[in-house]
Amino acid sequence: MLKVPDHQVAGHPAGNGVLGPLIDDSGNFYKPLQSGERGSREVAFYISFSSNIKIPDRIRKFFPIYHGTKLVEASDGSGLQPHLVLEDVVSNRLNPSIMDIKIGSRTWYPQASEDYILKCLKKDRETTSLPLGFRISGLQIYGSKESGVWKPDKKSLKNFTKDVRLVLRKFVSSNLFEDSSTEPDCSFAPTVYGGSTGILAQLLELKAWFEDQTIFHFNSCSVLMVFEKESIGKVMSSSATVKLVDFAHVVEGNGVIDHNFLGGLCSLIKFISEILADLTL
Amino acid sequence: MLKVPDHQVAGHPAGNGVLGPLIDDSGNFYKPLQSGERGSREVAFYISFSSNIKIPDRIRKFFPIYHGTKLVEASDGSGLQPHLVLEDVVSNRLNPSIMDIKIGSRTWYPQASEDYILKCLKKDRETTSLPLGFRISGLQIYGSKESGVWKPDKKSLKNFTKDVRLVLRKFVSSNLFEDSSTEPDCSFAPTVYGGSTGILAQLLELKAWFEDQTIFHFNSCSVLMVFEKESIGKVMSSSATVKLVDFAHVVEGNGVIDHNFLGGLCSLIKFISEILADLTL
Repeated sequence: MLKVPDHQVAGHPAGNGVLGPLIDDSGNFYKPLQSGERGSREVAFYISFSSNIKIPDRIRKFFPIYHGTKLVEASDGSGLQPHLVLEDVVSNRLNPSIMDIKIGSRTWYPQASEDYILKCLKKDRETTSLPLGFRISGLQIYGSKESGVWKPDKKSLKNFTKDVRLVLRKFVSSNLFEDSSTEPDCSFAPTVYGGSTGILAQLLELKAWFEDQTIFHFNSCSVLMVFEKESIGKVMSSSATVKLVDFAHVVEGNGVIDHNFLGGLCSLIKFISEILADLTL
Repeated sequence: MLKVPDHQVAGHPAGNGVLGPLIDDSGNFYKPLQSGERGSREVAFYISFSSNIKIPDRIRKFFPIYHGTKLVEASDGSGLQPHLVLEDVVSNRLNPSIMDIKIGSRTWYPQASEDYILKCLKKDRETTSLPLGFRISGLQIYGSKESGVWKPDKKSLKNFTKDVRLVLRKFVSSNLFEDSSTEPDCSFAPTVYGGSTGILAQLLELKAWFEDQTIFHFNSCSVLMVFEKESIGKVMSSSATVKLVDFAHVVEGNGVIDHNFLGGLCSLIKFISEILADLTL
C-alpha cells in the first residue's frame, strides 16, 4: 500500500491534482518521474551513480539507494505512472526535524534553455542563493509531543529563511516554540551539528569529495539535514544525517570540479562552524 | 623617472592615448586610478586591507604592498593624474613568465548595475569562467635568450586560453617554441607548480584562508602566477610566486565567505594538481 509521506519538506506534495511522491511500509520512496529532460536526467544520474565504481562507500552513503523505476498508481489518481523507487531517507524516523538546503549560488547551468536560465537567475537573486551560495528550500522542526511539528508554509518559509543564521540556530534549539524574541538556545547543536559523526563532520566529508570529483555537476541539488530530538541522549550519536537529493539537473562534470556546488557547500559549512564556535565562547 | 612596464600581461597598456600603468626604478608600480566607483573601490580596498590587523602575514604576502596614492604625469601625456602606488610584483624579475587568471565563475555581483551584470554574464558564458570557474586573461611565457618571450595578442589569447589544460602545461614547459604538435614536456612543473614553496602550495594556503575569511568578496580579481625559468636550478626554490591583483570590484563580505572566488580557486587547484599527478604516473 502506497501512501503520501508525512515528512516531505520541499518539492511538490501529492494531492490537489498534483503528482507527488509516495512511500510504502518497506522504506521505499516513490518519486514521480518528472516530464521531459528532467525525468530522464534524474534516471540517468541514478543509473550512472549506482554503477560507478569510482564512488567510494563513504560518499555513497550520502545518496538515497536507487531501486530502479516502476509504474505505480499515481498520487493524483491519474493511473499508472513511472516513478523512481528510492530509499526513503526518513522511513525509520518517528519525529524527524528536516531541512532542505538547495546548494549553489547558481541553480542554472550553460546547457539549460535561455528561459530556464533567466527564471533561475531571478530566483537566485531574490533568495539567499546568490549572496550566500545556498538557500533553505524546505523545513520542518519537531518540538515535542505537546507542541508538535512546525512546518512553515511556502510564503512564511520564504520570509523566514532570509535569516539563514537564525534558521540554522532554531533548527537545533529546544526553545523554538517560546516567544519569538527568545534567543534560540542551540541546545542540540553540539550533538546534531558537532561531534565526530555530526552534520558538520558529514559535510566536511562531502566537501573533500567535491574538491576532487569531476564526474558530476550537481546543479540545483539539495542537501537534506535530518535528525530526531528524541534520540538525542538515548544513543551515543545524534543520528543526524546528511543526504543529497534532487538530481533532475545533474550534468556530466567533464573533468572539471563542481565549483558552484563546492563554493555553496563551503559557505554552509562556515555558517554551521560559527554556530558551534559561538557555543564554546 | 617613470616608464611603461615591460611585463604587463592584462588590463589596458599605456600608450595610444590610453592611460596605462607606469613603474619606477625603486620597485613601485603606478596604477592609474580608474574612473568613478572602480577607482574609489580599489583605493578603499587597499586602505582597508593594509590596516586590517586580522589579515595574517602568511596571507598578506599574496597582495601587492600599498604605498598610497600619488599624482603623477600620466602615461598618455594628459598631465597629472591620481595613481595607486603599489609594489611592482615583477620588479626583481629579469625574464619572468606570467599568467593572469581571473577567478570566479561569476565576475558580476548583486551590487553592480544591470548593464554591468549583463555585460559580465555574457563574457562569463563566452569564456571558460562559467564552466571552469576561472579564465586566463593574460599571458607571457619566456622561452630562452634565442626564442625570447611569447606574448599572445588579445585575439590569440582568447582562442588559445579556451584549452586551459594545455596553457597551464605549456606555461611550465621547455619545448614551448617547437612545433605546435609537440606535447608540452612540463619539465618545470615539479619546481614551479610543485614543492613545498611552489604555486600549488601557495594556492592551497590561499584556499585555507578563503574557507574562513568573511571580510572581503573579491569579485573579478585575478591570481597572478610568476616565475623565472633562469632561476630554476640556481636556487633551491623556483621563486614561483602567487599574487592577487585587481581590486576595483571588491565589496564587503558581511560575514559570508567568498564562495564564488573559493569555488574557482579550488577548480584551478584541481587543474594544477592533475598536471603534477600526471608527472608521477
